[in-house]
Amino acid sequence: VTPEPAFGARLRGVLEAIGPLDAAAMAAAAARLDRLTKPPGSLGRLEALAIQLAGIRGEPAPPLDRRTIVVVAADHGVAARGVSAYPSAVTRQMVANFVAGGAAISVLAARASASVVVLDVGVAGPEPMVAERATEPAAEAAEPSAAPARLLVRRVRPGTRDLVAEPAMSPGEARAAIEIGLDLAAELVAGGADVVGLGEMGIGNTTSASAVTAALTGRAPAEVTGRGTGVDDARLAAKIRLIERALDRARCSPDDPFGVLCELGGLELAGLVGLALGVAAAGRPVLLDGFITGAAALVAARLAPDLPRRLLAAHRSVEPGHRVILDGLGLAPILDLDLRLGEGTGAALALHMLDAAVAVRDRMATFEEAGVAAAEAGAGAASR
Amino acid sequence: VTPEPAFGARLRGVLEAIGPLDAAAMAAAAARLDRLTKPPGSLGRLEALAIQLAGIRGEPAPPLDRRTIVVVAADHGVAARGVSAYPSAVTRQMVANFVAGGAAISVLAARASASVVVLDVGVAGPEPMVAERATEPAAEAAEPSAAPARLLVRRVRPGTRDLVAEPAMSPGEARAAIEIGLDLAAELVAGGADVVGLGEMGIGNTTSASAVTAALTGRAPAEVTGRGTGVDDARLAAKIRLIERALDRARCSPDDPFGVLCELGGLELAGLVGLALGVAAAGRPVLLDGFITGAAALVAARLAPDLPRRLLAAHRSVEPGHRVILDGLGLAPILDLDLRLGEGTGAALALHMLDAAVAVRDRMATFEEAGVAAAEAGAGAASR
Repeated sequence: VTPEPAFGARLRGVLEAIGPLDAAAMAAAAARLDRLTKPPGSLGRLEALAIQLAGIRGEPAPPLDRRTIVVVAADHGVAARGVSAYPSAVTRQMVANFVAGGAAISVLAARASASVVVLDVGVAGPEPMVAERATEPAAEAAEPSAAPARLLVRRVRPGTRDLVAEPAMSPGEARAAIEIGLDLAAELVAGGADVVGLGEMGIGNTTSASAVTAALTGRAPAEVTGRGTGVDDARLAAKIRLIERALDRARCSPDDPFGVLCELGGLELAGLVGLALGVAAAGRPVLLDGFITGAAALVAARLAPDLPRRLLAAHRSVEPGHRVILDGLGLAPILDLDLRLGEGTGAALALHMLDAAVAVRDRMATFEEAGVAAAEAGAGAASR
Repeated sequence: VTPEPAFGARLRGVLEAIGPLDAAAMAAAAARLDRLTKPPGSLGRLEALAIQLAGIRGEPAPPLDRRTIVVVAADHGVAARGVSAYPSAVTRQMVANFVAGGAAISVLAARASASVVVLDVGVAGPEPMVAERATEPAAEAAEPSAAPARLLVRRVRPGTRDLVAEPAMSPGEARAAIEIGLDLAAELVAGGADVVGLGEMGIGNTTSASAVTAALTGRAPAEVTGRGTGVDDARLAAKIRLIERALDRARCSPDDPFGVLCELGGLELAGLVGLALGVAAAGRPVLLDGFITGAAALVAARLAPDLPRRLLAAHRSVEPGHRVILDGLGLAPILDLDLRLGEGTGAALALHMLDAAVAVRDRMATFEEAGVAAAEAGAGAASR
């Protein structure tokens, strides 16, 4: 575990690098969009995304060629209480499925030309076999049917402690997971990533994310807790009661996001906090997935108030807490498809919309090029 | 113009072919999805789309390889009254832009591997030069940056009459445009189309679509009329008053969809009615774009009550009438991106979500294949 002072200095540097967007780049992007053969603003969110991407990267037309989705995986002590429809062993089994390329994220990332990195910051059970850890994806086919993941094993501990009974992580453990996220963010950006999508895997992690969301927003657990992978009414009621007990035990202040993370969070949430902060500080867009990555972003945004401008919310999950999180971050989701899977699947889907925004920006004809008349007087001020 | 009896027999045959979906194919698709390594139903709309596609085509896993977006183009007599921010000449200019591959639909269709056909059923002005009509797209590149459109010129008349003053089309003209749509639908399906997206271009056509929507739903024009390409408050108010006058003049019965189409519609709306009916009757999915294609679908659904099950609503436009149309058709939009462009751009974007649904269906590992444990007792009945 990294000693406190060194971590503090590193984190401070990251937080200071997360400032407002580049207004000049955004204005240049908007001006370009208004010369294209369409009514100004008529492509709605696509145009807003193109402008936001310019502001994040600090250039009018940043590339979006290299994209990685990071699936941060870890286990949760609270899973032993039966909060999920699946046993904890599924976390490790799904990591193997990611590596083999058989999961939903494998298929959807391939369709979006994204590579997948699985970051194991605290999965329980034996470490994967060497064969499972063969980390470099196979040579890329023209259109691969699935993206086998590169696996990074950086286990802080084999899952969190039971957040109902005790703090899920020590401060040192949470810091270690954050630093692992910061390290990977730096590596990805150095490797040329134009956008980083965030995903997760961890049986029990909607319980942790609901607890974190309740602690940070002051909402009652019943308002921010859902069925996760699909529990029935009785298990949902029990899950809510467990979260209420955890909050009573921890008595966190909403003004202490790091404390909330330690008490109620997960190792993957901490890793995601580091990733989001590190990618944003490097001037690259962070594409959130659903509820769990949103809860991590909520923690990160309490540390870096300008962070949300650098986040893109891929979709709105059916988990009720996700709506609360998106409202808290001031983010409008790109998609709303009743997803509740995680893994970064929503992020992979939303990449197509980012690609569309960039394609329109770069490839459409202007009014002058196409010989099309522009709007007459009487056209309204197009809202964007 | 086709004589009434022959048209009547042809249309009757088409309408009779539009029945309920294939329940066995849908059940087989749902069963397949539930064996995949994800909680049942957790991919939400993607799973629902995969099931709907099975029901439409009548097979558990229909292909989605060949896709065409048809942009039906025509002019509107009412445009002379200044209801749009753009002059009528822009319809013809944009058709040339589609053929050259410079428009938003050119770019977005290429990204979705869709070909574009522009069907000119009534654009005003000189017919395009031969060079502009060179109809076959260039050989396909690996990832073409834009899709030059194939242009079919089948003009019924050079734009509709002014719907404020007189019927927009004679019954013979509307029938002719519907038949042109039916002809193209048959040609596309015979050519192997797995899905047909609908788009449109026609300066003034939001006025026509709002009038048709008001006439068929009984809503007041102010409830279903928006800014189209972006008119200001004064022009919006004038547009609403013109639609009120048109409705007072025409006094259509909501139970006479063909009469509403003749009185208030556009030639492209009539062509879209024929396309939607013809594609659906052939057992292929119809991917609607926004407000104009939705208004055409509303007319078509009054003729064929089971049609909406065979329609996919790509997105929800910012035009207020579109929400009314989607409610009337019982359709939930796939995307909601504040688009108001038309051309089929929303359809091109939504194709990525259909592709994702099909990729998940075909490429994910099953629980057995991946060695992942299925849900425990206590998992809820997953809703889909």
